[in-house]
Amino acid sequence: MIIMESNATQEQIDQVIKEIKKFRLRADVSKGAYRTVIGLVGDENKIPFTHFSTLPGVKEAIRIETAYKLLSKEYGKFSEGLSEPFVVKAGDIGIGGDEPTFIAGPCAIESKEQLFKIAEGVKMAGAHILRGGVFKPRSSVHSFQGLGAKGREEAEEALTWLSEAGKKFDMPVVTEVRGEAQVDLLAEYVDMFQIGARNMYNQDLLTKVAKKNKPVLFKRHFGAGIEEFLSFAEYIAAEGNKNIVLCERGIVPIGKGKQYSRYTLDLNAVPVIQKETYLPIIVDPSHAAGRRDLIFNLSCAAIASGADGLIIEVHYNPAEALVDGRQMITPDKLKDVIDACRKIHKLVLPERNKS
Amino acid sequence: MIIMESNATQEQIDQVIKEIKKFRLRADVSKGAYRTVIGLVGDENKIPFTHFSTLPGVKEAIRIETAYKLLSKEYGKFSEGLSEPFVVKAGDIGIGGDEPTFIAGPCAIESKEQLFKIAEGVKMAGAHILRGGVFKPRSSVHSFQGLGAKGREEAEEALTWLSEAGKKFDMPVVTEVRGEAQVDLLAEYVDMFQIGARNMYNQDLLTKVAKKNKPVLFKRHFGAGIEEFLSFAEYIAAEGNKNIVLCERGIVPIGKGKQYSRYTLDLNAVPVIQKETYLPIIVDPSHAAGRRDLIFNLSCAAIASGADGLIIEVHYNPAEALVDGRQMITPDKLKDVIDACRKIHKLVLPERNKS
Amino acid sequence: MIIMESNATQEQIDQVIKEIKKFRLRADVSKGAYRTVIGLVGDENKIPFTHFSTLPGVKEAIRIETAYKLLSKEYGKFSEGLSEPFVVKAGDIGIGGDEPTFIAGPCAIESKEQLFKIAEGVKMAGAHILRGGVFKPRSSVHSFQGLGAKGREEAEEALTWLSEAGKKFDMPVVTEVRGEAQVDLLAEYVDMFQIGARNMYNQDLLTKVAKKNKPVLFKRHFGAGIEEFLSFAEYIAAEGNKNIVLCERGIVPIGKGKQYSRYTLDLNAVPVIQKETYLPIIVDPSHAAGRRDLIFNLSCAAIASGADGLIIEVHYNPAEALVDGRQMITPDKLKDVIDACRKIHKLVLPERNKS
Amino acid sequence: MIIMESNATQEQIDQVIKEIKKFRLRADVSKGAYRTVIGLVGDENKIPFTHFSTLPGVKEAIRIETAYKLLSKEYGKFSEGLSEPFVVKAGDIGIGGDEPTFIAGPCAIESKEQLFKIAEGVKMAGAHILRGGVFKPRSSVHSFQGLGAKGREEAEEALTWLSEAGKKFDMPVVTEVRGEAQVDLLAEYVDMFQIGARNMYNQDLLTKVAKKNKPVLFKRHFGAGIEEFLSFAEYIAAEGNKNIVLCERGIVPIGKGKQYSRYTLDLNAVPVIQKETYLPIIVDPSHAAGRRDLIFNLSCAAIASGADGLIIEVHYNPAEALVDGRQMITPDKLKDVIDACRKIHKLVLPERNKS
Repeated sequence: MIIMESNATQEQIDQVIKEIKKFRLRADVSKGAYRTVIGLVGDENKIPFTHFSTLPGVKEAIRIETAYKLLSKEYGKFSEGLSEPFVVKAGDIGIGGDEPTFIAGPCAIESKEQLFKIAEGVKMAGAHILRGGVFKPRSSVHSFQGLGAKGREEAEEALTWLSEAGKKFDMPVVTEVRGEAQVDLLAEYVDMFQIGARNMYNQDLLTKVAKKNKPVLFKRHFGAGIEEFLSFAEYIAAEGNKNIVLCERGIVPIGKGKQYSRYTLDLNAVPVIQKETYLPIIVDPSHAAGRRDLIFNLSCAAIASGADGLIIEVHYNPAEALVDGRQMITPDKLKDVIDACRKIHKLVLPERNKS
Repeated sequence: MIIMESNATQEQIDQVIKEIKKFRLRADVSKGAYRTVIGLVGDENKIPFTHFSTLPGVKEAIRIETAYKLLSKEYGKFSEGLSEPFVVKAGDIGIGGDEPTFIAGPCAIESKEQLFKIAEGVKMAGAHILRGGVFKPRSSVHSFQGLGAKGREEAEEALTWLSEAGKKFDMPVVTEVRGEAQVDLLAEYVDMFQIGARNMYNQDLLTKVAKKNKPVLFKRHFGAGIEEFLSFAEYIAAEGNKNIVLCERGIVPIGKGKQYSRYTLDLNAVPVIQKETYLPIIVDPSHAAGRRDLIFNLSCAAIASGADGLIIEVHYNPAEALVDGRQMITPDKLKDVIDACRKIHKLVLPERNKS
Repeated sequence: MIIMESNATQEQIDQVIKEIKKFRLRADVSKGAYRTVIGLVGDENKIPFTHFSTLPGVKEAIRIETAYKLLSKEYGKFSEGLSEPFVVKAGDIGIGGDEPTFIAGPCAIESKEQLFKIAEGVKMAGAHILRGGVFKPRSSVHSFQGLGAKGREEAEEALTWLSEAGKKFDMPVVTEVRGEAQVDLLAEYVDMFQIGARNMYNQDLLTKVAKKNKPVLFKRHFGAGIEEFLSFAEYIAAEGNKNIVLCERGIVPIGKGKQYSRYTLDLNAVPVIQKETYLPIIVDPSHAAGRRDLIFNLSCAAIASGADGLIIEVHYNPAEALVDGRQMITPDKLKDVIDACRKIHKLVLPERNKS
Repeated sequence: MIIMESNATQEQIDQVIKEIKKFRLRADVSKGAYRTVIGLVGDENKIPFTHFSTLPGVKEAIRIETAYKLLSKEYGKFSEGLSEPFVVKAGDIGIGGDEPTFIAGPCAIESKEQLFKIAEGVKMAGAHILRGGVFKPRSSVHSFQGLGAKGREEAEEALTWLSEAGKKFDMPVVTEVRGEAQVDLLAEYVDMFQIGARNMYNQDLLTKVAKKNKPVLFKRHFGAGIEEFLSFAEYIAAEGNKNIVLCERGIVPIGKGKQYSRYTLDLNAVPVIQKETYLPIIVDPSHAAGRRDLIFNLSCAAIASGADGLIIEVHYNPAEALVDGRQMITPDKLKDVIDACRKIHKLVLPERNKS
């Protein structure tokens, strides 16, 4: 990280970037009202930091030891543009500020009617952003893969519904991008990309999505450590896109015997990640639980752990859902969750602001 | 499980018990004001349930399919003595009722002065039960093993302090029993036994402790699945002692790379266990975190997940502590935790009472 | 699975396929000299099996309960084309027969000279197939990502070297495909695709690669259970491509404390998978170990567990390697490994043929 | 570790021990023909190493950084008594030398006839040591706990059978000690103690068993990392008993979905542990597999990984066994395993002797 003097000229900044390129690294330039900070994308071991610290206009050249340096608290501290709370905007909704954000909707979009009915329900329950899956990643090739699997036309139709529902109920929309071939198409319809847990390690997809410069909801893989999670988020940041909302959605259950829930929510991850990076982090209790009777408590726990919001699967009649019906809650139940979570968020916010 | 008619005579009950013994099983008799329920200890496959259901005074004979049948919701439902909320009493403090319970104190007792100072601190912060370790289980034989390791005399001295501190500050006391040889000694001094995570699988210790008929704080091993955890708690219940408080204290972190906390708190376990058994469950955020800056959020999350209380390590000057200093909080911080947790508990209690 | 009569006509087969399509499923047709077997791609729950069993030319209609039915032993048993040992051919080298197959080469191709020198070394040591990475998946965006990261031209150049080295030393070649955009390019140069562990869950990539009808070396993700691994291999099979070689390459280490190897080789997986599916399975000891002093023993263990071959990273001077130098062995050491493994394979082969 | 001069007097040695005690640590004295080495039991941070290195007769004072310093290669290197190969003797059978050792027998002793029939079978198959369980640790209190659970008399009877069978078929005998109360009793009957996986963390049991000065077969817990495993073995060594045979018996399976085997054998652990400590290590494929059709391959893999032997459960009629019948093999199959393993051991021995 190269911290420029507050009065450094554009020429001096360009000179530093030119030097960085000489070493075959890329530059991540973060301009603030007061000063400019330049991050390095590539292997810092090749860089003579002492040389850089002597260039004109450079205040300090600091090595950051993590693999997620562009997302680190330290980098954020010097880049005013990233100063906390760092709020990511999806449409006109901010995530990471002083109020929790709730994303809700069906797991998979099944029909226009189904989507609109759920959209109305979640809006009335207090949700801010509408989710709905068109391209569903599934563990079995023999399972329903979303309307997107039926062909380009069906995919566009479903995306049009999503976009219309968002407008009608005044909510930005987010959907999952499962493969590189879907990036351009989805970019036309959605306010925010979701990259699912199974694609956390898919660096080619991350890079391609990042370039669209839309906010990205980035989910942790269920077998990934926190360091891996942040290191792959860095693939998005390295394209100059820091509009990343991290999402904890459960890790593989431990031990022998019966599994009582699909995954195990890792809430240590929430405060830990908030101490490592300036990015907001939300929690997906639906996939972590895999059963609806745990959603209320896991949602409250997530917010109490410090999360900036939740993403929850909702259906007016869960028994009818083609995918994941067992874990969906009704709009009424969502309202209970949101009401309790708002109160809990207020109770724990002072702790976040202390650190 | 054999459910007796409400008007079954003692003779009929004795007859059933006699029959059970014929099949080389033991009987767990649970008498309520209204009726008696008899659990079976041993392999139920050997039992002809149809035969039992025809004995005089027997209303129903039901096979329970889990390994933790004496602790199961189903068994509790029929045994009024276990009816919910099932409150376990340590001294005059109940765990599992409509208010959360807070257990706090030093990790290890180091001196009388240290213990009394901390006891006073946690009492003023709102704690109900005093904890303090005399026999410390440690990963390395080369680490400090508690005052108990120095000899019988030192152990008794430390236990006397603990008992006195409990009396002085009006808190029941709990300490960990690490081996069978300590059971008799500790029984003289403490209101509640703690069985630590590393001893969860130590069935001979569980059986020996259970027989003392004192309440047992039973911690989940960090590599154990929930089914295993409950199956080993059943070893205590099988001795006729159902005064068990379960404790989630973190599981082994997942994945590769840097570990940011000692363990990962598994809060799915809290509502899951509350749906499987009638026992109360508390959470130990101190060991789960291993660092004090996570304690506030993990404590709040634990209570929000539905936990009946917390056990927290406290020291007036954590830097001085001989064991686990990094994870201890001060009495002042404990007060913040307890205050927030009380409010959160109120918000989530209605959900528990619904189920 | 629909098993046709041995004298079923093409018309009858077409009729069955037509019926399958009516239910919006796809058909996987496996023709043998003796009879035809038709697998179903999609949700079998929608299919009235009793109806199918009455169609003309149909001998039997059987539901297979796993998510990897096209790869299951049961399906293989009825499809002569898949009868065991099922040998996958990469160029003229078979994998899965009565001799073990050894794949070796550098982790990343760094230069023509480096590649040719290593190719010669591994050929002389007894290797059959040459590996070499052009597009490297990396945990950190700041690490070397292979020559492919430098641009299309550099990628083609490296692939040309690989192809030439393969021809010169008479070895088919395999390289990793990391993203969808690379599939067409790689198909021109390689005899076999490798899909790396991090992409195991990347179903869009699997589908796209499968369509090229080249053999696929498919690696298990380090956090994936065996059922997941096979269920994702099924995505390849569902495109009509059964030329799949499975590869175990280590799972995330368990427990607390120091990690002595990068991953933990799961050799239970080898005989287990051989009992579940007809596909060959090889082992990658290099990534499992992450240190060269374990390679000999882990290789021998893998072959002793029943593996059909190994894939090993080799460098004439490991200290020089840009990626993974710590885990590479020299060609001389590779010869020791291959010699011992050949003898061990002979000792355990009778056990495989028994089952 | 204090390395004495080769001509150091007993007085000088005593002086060093006295100094060690001053710092409240214990001394582990290892005398060789050539020189004496003194290990420290306790927290080395309290020790001024520079002071010790100036004491008369002291050649060198070295800090060892692991928690298993008395078992470390480094300590072994200087203590001739521990020089490699370090062979542990159970009766007159050595474990850890140039030939693999096979321990076999029933899971649980059920009757004299059953035991003797199996003992004869395993002897003829080539086994060296007889195993048989009297006190069985079980996951459920409702399962059969071994004849030892029926009372002291039944326990003694079963132990007498075991002792007699060992004598009749000329094999030393080993049985599991499950709780502290069994240590004295078992010491009268067995040549070697087994401490099971579930008791790996039971430090009070380890200490009590160690004091009997009999060899200890010490099994790794299924959730324990390698560092933990060795750190708890150190509890035995700290009592002056280094006659420890480590045993890998499988770790908890990873990932989601169906579990195809009870545990996952971790064969990385074998060569890793052999590089960390001088102790022999054997493998238990029976518990790792939980199904008999994997035993042959896992046994061969274990020996190929470098293991010094195997412990295998055998029954002449597995279907009859009261415990673990699914994983038992017949004496005939055991012979196949031993024959193949002997040949494989010869193939991999040179690699061990190299390191």
